[in-house]
Amino acid sequence: MPHPLDSFFAPSSIALIGASRDHEKIPGRLLSMLRKNEFPGRLYPVNPNYGDIDGLKCFPSIADVGQPIDLAIIVIPARAVFGALEQCAAAGVRNAVIISSGFAEEGGDSAAMQQAIVALARKAGMRISGPNAEGFYSEIQRVAATFSPTVDVKPGELRLVATKKRIGIVAQSGGIGFAFYHRARALGIALSYVVSAGNESDLGAGEFFEYMVQDPSTDVILLFLEGIRDVDQFLAAARRAAETGKPVIVTKVGRSGAGERAAASHTASMAGWSAAYDAVFARYGFIISNDLDEAVTIAAVLTTNPLPKGDRVAVLTVSGGAGIWGADTVAMQGLQVPELSTPIQQEIGKLLPSYGSARNPIDVTAQGVTSGGLQNSIDLLAASDEVDAILVVLSLSSETRMPFKEAELKPVISAQHKPIVFYSYTLPSRFARTELAASGVVVLSGLTHVGVALRQIRARAKFALARPAKGDALASRDLSAHLTSAAMSEFDSKSLLRAAGIALAEEALVTEKSALDAAIARAGFPLVMKIQSPDIPHKSEVGGVRVNINTKGEAFIAYQALLDNARKHRPDAAIQGVLVGPMAKKGVEIIIGTMRDATFGPMVMVGLGGITTELFRDVVYRPAPVSAGEAATMLSELKAAPLLRGFRGAAGTDVAALCDLIEQVSLLAARLRHDVAEIELNPVLVHPQGQGVTVVDALVVRKG
Amino acid sequence: MPHPLDSFFAPSSIALIGASRDHEKIPGRLLSMLRKNEFPGRLYPVNPNYGDIDGLKCFPSIADVGQPIDLAIIVIPARAVFGALEQCAAAGVRNAVIISSGFAEEGGDSAAMQQAIVALARKAGMRISGPNAEGFYSEIQRVAATFSPTVDVKPGELRLVATKKRIGIVAQSGGIGFAFYHRARALGIALSYVVSAGNESDLGAGEFFEYMVQDPSTDVILLFLEGIRDVDQFLAAARRAAETGKPVIVTKVGRSGAGERAAASHTASMAGWSAAYDAVFARYGFIISNDLDEAVTIAAVLTTNPLPKGDRVAVLTVSGGAGIWGADTVAMQGLQVPELSTPIQQEIGKLLPSYGSARNPIDVTAQGVTSGGLQNSIDLLAASDEVDAILVVLSLSSETRMPFKEAELKPVISAQHKPIVFYSYTLPSRFARTELAASGVVVLSGLTHVGVALRQIRARAKFALARPAKGDALASRDLSAHLTSAAMSEFDSKSLLRAAGIALAEEALVTEKSALDAAIARAGFPLVMKIQSPDIPHKSEVGGVRVNINTKGEAFIAYQALLDNARKHRPDAAIQGVLVGPMAKKGVEIIIGTMRDATFGPMVMVGLGGITTELFRDVVYRPAPVSAGEAATMLSELKAAPLLRGFRGAAGTDVAALCDLIEQVSLLAARLRHDVAEIELNPVLVHPQGQGVTVVDALVVRKG
Repeated sequence: MPHPLDSFFAPSSIALIGASRDHEKIPGRLLSMLRKNEFPGRLYPVNPNYGDIDGLKCFPSIADVGQPIDLAIIVIPARAVFGALEQCAAAGVRNAVIISSGFAEEGGDSAAMQQAIVALARKAGMRISGPNAEGFYSEIQRVAATFSPTVDVKPGELRLVATKKRIGIVAQSGGIGFAFYHRARALGIALSYVVSAGNESDLGAGEFFEYMVQDPSTDVILLFLEGIRDVDQFLAAARRAAETGKPVIVTKVGRSGAGERAAASHTASMAGWSAAYDAVFARYGFIISNDLDEAVTIAAVLTTNPLPKGDRVAVLTVSGGAGIWGADTVAMQGLQVPELSTPIQQEIGKLLPSYGSARNPIDVTAQGVTSGGLQNSIDLLAASDEVDAILVVLSLSSETRMPFKEAELKPVISAQHKPIVFYSYTLPSRFARTELAASGVVVLSGLTHVGVALRQIRARAKFALARPAKGDALASRDLSAHLTSAAMSEFDSKSLLRAAGIALAEEALVTEKSALDAAIARAGFPLVMKIQSPDIPHKSEVGGVRVNINTKGEAFIAYQALLDNARKHRPDAAIQGVLVGPMAKKGVEIIIGTMRDATFGPMVMVGLGGITTELFRDVVYRPAPVSAGEAATMLSELKAAPLLRGFRGAAGTDVAALCDLIEQVSLLAARLRHDVAEIELNPVLVHPQGQGVTVVDALVVRKG
Repeated sequence: MPHPLDSFFAPSSIALIGASRDHEKIPGRLLSMLRKNEFPGRLYPVNPNYGDIDGLKCFPSIADVGQPIDLAIIVIPARAVFGALEQCAAAGVRNAVIISSGFAEEGGDSAAMQQAIVALARKAGMRISGPNAEGFYSEIQRVAATFSPTVDVKPGELRLVATKKRIGIVAQSGGIGFAFYHRARALGIALSYVVSAGNESDLGAGEFFEYMVQDPSTDVILLFLEGIRDVDQFLAAARRAAETGKPVIVTKVGRSGAGERAAASHTASMAGWSAAYDAVFARYGFIISNDLDEAVTIAAVLTTNPLPKGDRVAVLTVSGGAGIWGADTVAMQGLQVPELSTPIQQEIGKLLPSYGSARNPIDVTAQGVTSGGLQNSIDLLAASDEVDAILVVLSLSSETRMPFKEAELKPVISAQHKPIVFYSYTLPSRFARTELAASGVVVLSGLTHVGVALRQIRARAKFALARPAKGDALASRDLSAHLTSAAMSEFDSKSLLRAAGIALAEEALVTEKSALDAAIARAGFPLVMKIQSPDIPHKSEVGGVRVNINTKGEAFIAYQALLDNARKHRPDAAIQGVLVGPMAKKGVEIIIGTMRDATFGPMVMVGLGGITTELFRDVVYRPAPVSAGEAATMLSELKAAPLLRGFRGAAGTDVAALCDLIEQVSLLAARLRHDVAEIELNPVLVHPQGQGVTVVDALVVRKG
C-alpha cells in the first residue's frame, strides 16, 4: 500500500540546494555521497555559482530545474533556508531535508525562523525533516541523503550481507543513528533505512517510526530516542508494531541527571522521565538496550533467527573454558543449559575424542572441527527437541581456515526452526565473516551481548500485547464534588475513591467525642485511629496514628491524644476529626501509585510496600489505564513477586483482587488526568487467596 | 631479584620434543611459531625421523643435544611423554611444557600417567607446565611456546602499541587466555606474558600468578580461572598484589550449574563455589569481570591511565546524542557528571559554535574538531580541579582524517594526572588506532565497558587492604566439651558461643515446670519461650516458639503448649526443655552465617535478615576470619546498608557492635574449621547507636 512518505524515502528526483565542488565540506560531500552510492533517480544540484559540478549540470535556483522534484536536500546557511523553501514550495517540491543548523537548538530568533519554516511547509503541503538533521540513507533505493562518512563507498569494497531480513533505524541523533548503521553493516546485517530526526520541525521520530512499522522491507526496527515529540504517532506505531509482531529495539538516553540536562537542550527536545518511557516500551514489547553493540547484537540475532520456543540452550564449543563461559553467560541471563539425554550424548560422543564432553556445554574440542564432530553436533542439536536454541562458541580469527563447509552448514541454517547463534572468542576475521555470511550466519563477538540477545528474543517470543483496560471496571460517575479543595486528607481521598466505586473498608470520621462510641461499635475491636487534616499528609510524623486499640478506654484516650498531638505539632492545621476503622487483617504490603508524565500522561505504579520499595527500587510502571491482565504482568515483573505467589510455604495471595484494584485505580487516574496529579494507596494489604485486599491508607494529590 | 621461574619464562635454550615439518599440525606449527616470533635463544628440534627441519638441525633425542636446556616443549603422543621426560631429567632440562593431551582430563590409566610424571619431576627438580596445555607466549623475550594461532606473525604487519605498561595473562584455558591476548593486542595493549595452565600437574595458576605479581615487566594482571588448585600460592600472591598495588582483573567461570558441571570435569579441576571466589577477590581488591571485552577494556584503561582521585567525570563529545549516552552510561555506574562552573564553561565556550554546550556533557559539535574546541577542552579539563576523569566520545571511523594532532595531544596524555579515556561510537579504524597510539591513547569501542572500567578503576583507587582479624578479639578457649554431640540445639549452640566469649542475652533452659517461676523472674516480662531439641532445628515449624508473653499465666500455658506441640509433631525428638528469655528490643534484622568452602575453607556471610535476604539475595561473603574493619566494608556493600546507617530519618544503628560480633563469629568459625560446618546467627537485632546488638537465635551445625 503506498504511503505518503514513500516519495521522501524513495524519491525519483532529488535537488541538492547548496551543492558544492568542495568535497572536504558538507555540501560537497553530500553530492559525492549521493553519486558514489549510485542514486538511480534524477539529481539536480542547485547553486548559482556553478554551471556544473563534477560533470553534472548545476541549476542557479530550484525554479530553473523545471522538473518534478520529490526531495530537496537543503544545505545552505540558516538565514537563507526560508527563502529556499519558499522557492521549493513554488516549484511543487514534495519533501525537504534541511541539513543546515542554527534553528530551535539555538533558541531566540533562530527558533522563530524554525517556526516560520514549519508554517510555510504546512501551508504548502510540503513535508520537512530537520533542520539540524544528518539526513537519511536508504540501502534499498540507494539514497544517500546524508553527509555521514559512514555511508561512504570505498572502491572495491564488497558489502558483506549475511541476513535476508533488514533493520530500519530511526535516530534522534545522526551521529548515533549512523554509528548503529556502521556497526550493523560491519556484521553483515542488511538495512532498509537509517533516518536521523534532527529538530523535528515537521517530520518527527514517531512518524518515521510509523513508516518503518508499515514498510514491508523493514523487518526489525532500531530506535534511538532522546525525547518523543509526536507522541500520538509514536504510540499508534508502537501498538501496530506489537500487533503485527515486528520487533523493536530501543535505546532511550537522557536517563541520568546529566544526560537529562543535555537531552533537554540538545535538539531542543523534552527528555521526559525515563521510567515512563520504559513503561511504554514494556507495554508494547520493545526490547530496551542501553548499549550500541548490545542493540546491534540483538538486531543481528533477530534478523538471522526464528524466535525460540523455550528456555533451553545448547552451548557447543571447541574450547572447554570458552564453553563453560558460554554456559555461565546464558545461565546468568535466566536461560537453561540442560544436560543432554544419554541417547543424544552417545550420538554426539561418536565423533568426539575421549577428552571431549557431550553433556552441555558440548565440548567437541579442537579435534571436533576436523573430525566432523562440530558440524554433526549442530545437525543433531538443530533436529533435537531437547533444546530450543544453540549457541556455538568458537575461534574464528583465522584468515584462511574455516571450521565449516558451506555445503554442510547452509542447509541447516536455511531450514533452522530454532536460533543458532555463532560467537567467536577471538576477534573474528573478515574472512570468517564473509565465509559464514554465505551460509546466512552473522559472527558475533561480545559474549554478554549474545547472552542478553538470547534472553531478549526469548522474552519477545513470550510477549503478548495486553488487552486494554475495561472502561466498565469502574463506573463513570461525576466526582466533581470531591475535587473542590486544593489539598485532600486521607478521609477526603478515600471518599473520592469510594465515590468512584473502589471498595474500601468501612470507617467513620469522628468529629466529636460523643460520636466515638457509635464509631467503635460499627468498626469493632481492634481499632485503628488516625488524625485527619488536609494539612497533615504524613500523619505518623505528628503522632497522628494509633493502632491495635482493644478497649473503649484506650479509644477515648487515643482520641484525645491524636487531637492534642496535631495541635502541638501543627497548630495551624485545619483538623477534620479522627478516622476510626477496624485493624486490617494481615497481608503482603503493596504500594499502588499513579502520577503524571509530561510526555505520556498518567502512569500507574505498583511495588512492594514498606522500606523495601525505596531500598531495592522494586517498582513497575505502566501508562494508565491498565487492564487487570496487564496489572498481573506488572506484578510478575516485581522482584518481590514470589511473596505474592506464596513464599517459603506461605499461602498464595489474592492477586486477582489486587489486579482488579490496580485496574480501577489506573482507570480513575486516567479519567481524572486534568484534576489529579497523584494517587497513592500505601499500604495495600493483599490477603490470602479469596480474601481480597485492604487499602489501609490513601492519598489523592490535586493537580497544582 | 631472580626468580626460579625466570628460566621457564625467559629460557636461553628450548628443545622442541616432537618437532615436525608439517605446518598444518600442532608440532609443526609450534616450531614455526617459535621461529616466526624470532626467539633469540638456541632452539633444538628433537625428532628421530628428521636430520633437519626447515634448515634447522634436528636431534634424534634430547640426550643428543649435549647443551644446557632451559625449557623442553613436549608435543608427542601421551604414552611417550613419560619416557621423554625421563630423558629430559637425565639431560638436566630445567623446565618442561607438556602440550600433549590425554592425561588427568581423561581419568583412569591416563590420570595415573600424569601422577607418574609429577613424581618424576619432583624427584628430578624439574618444573612442569601441563600436560594438556596450550603453552605460553612472552612478548618481552619473544618466546612463542604455544601453537595458538593468535601469536602467528603476519608478514609486514606492524604490532600496534599504545601503552607503556604491560599486562600479564594467566589462564586456565588456553583458548581464552590467547583470546584475551588477541583482543588486547588489537587495541594496542602491550603484554608481558600469556600463559595457559593446562592440567597443572606441577606448575599451577597460583604459581604463575605469583610470578606475574613479582615480575617488574608486568603492570596489570589478567586472570581467567576455572578452579584454583594451588590455593596457598594463589592467596599469597593475591595478598602481595594487594600490598604492592598491582591491579588484578579476574574472570572466574563455572558460576552456573551447567558451567560448574563442565568446569568440574574440564581440565580435571575443582570448580568450587563462586561466592567464595568472589569473597577472596573482594578481600584483595581484584576487579571481577565476566566479559572478555569488558576485561580487556579495563586492562586498556589501567595501562594508559592513573587512577582517578574522585568520582567526577567530564564527558566531552562532538555529537550531542553520543554525549548524552556517555553521560548516562557513566552516571549509571554511580559516577558523577557534574555541571561545570561558569568560568570553565566560559573558557570552553570560546571555541564552540552557538549550538554547542559547555555544561557537561560538553558538546563541542563536529565544528569543534576543526575550530580547536575539542583539543582545547581536553587541555582545560585535564588541568581543571572540577573533574577527576575525562571521557572523550567521538567518531574515529575515518581512514584518513584524525581529529587530533600528535603534537597537541601527546604532551597532555604524557603529563596526565587523571584518566582520559577515548571512546568511538563508530567502529574505530586501524588508521585512528595507529595515529592515537602514537600519543599513548587506546581507542575503546564498547561504551558500557568503558563505564564499567571507569567505575572499577575508581573503586580500585579507593581500595585498601583490610587489616587481618585480631586473634585476641576472641579469647582462645577449649571448647571441646561443647562439641560432643553430632546435632546441636539453639541452647547447645548458644552455650558454645557463650563459652567462646561471645556476649549473648541471659536465658534459662527450663526442664521442669517448677523451675519456670525462677526463670521468669530472671528474664522479666515480656518473655520469649522456645522449645529446645537437637532434633528440631526449625522450631517455628512445629509451633515451638511463643513471643510477647506478658503474664505468668500465659507463660505456664505456653510452657505446656510448646512441649505438647513438639511431642505431637516430632514424637521421636529428644526434648531438652524450654528456653526462657527476655524479648529483645527492636532493631534492624541482620543475619550472620559461616560456612566452609571446599577450596578456601571457612567463610563468613552477612545479610539483611527476614525474607528480604532470600528474595533480593542481599548478602556479602568474606573468607573467615575478618577484622571488624573488614566487617564494616562487608556491611557497606549490602544494598540494605542505608538501613544500618539510619534510613528515612531513623537513628543510625550500632554498626560498631555488629562489626565486633562478625569478627568474633568469623574467628570462631576459623578456629573450629575442623569441627563445625556452619554457624548461623539469625536474626541478630542491631539496636540504635551505643545500644549494642542482640543475637535472637543461633545454630551451630557440626561437620558431618
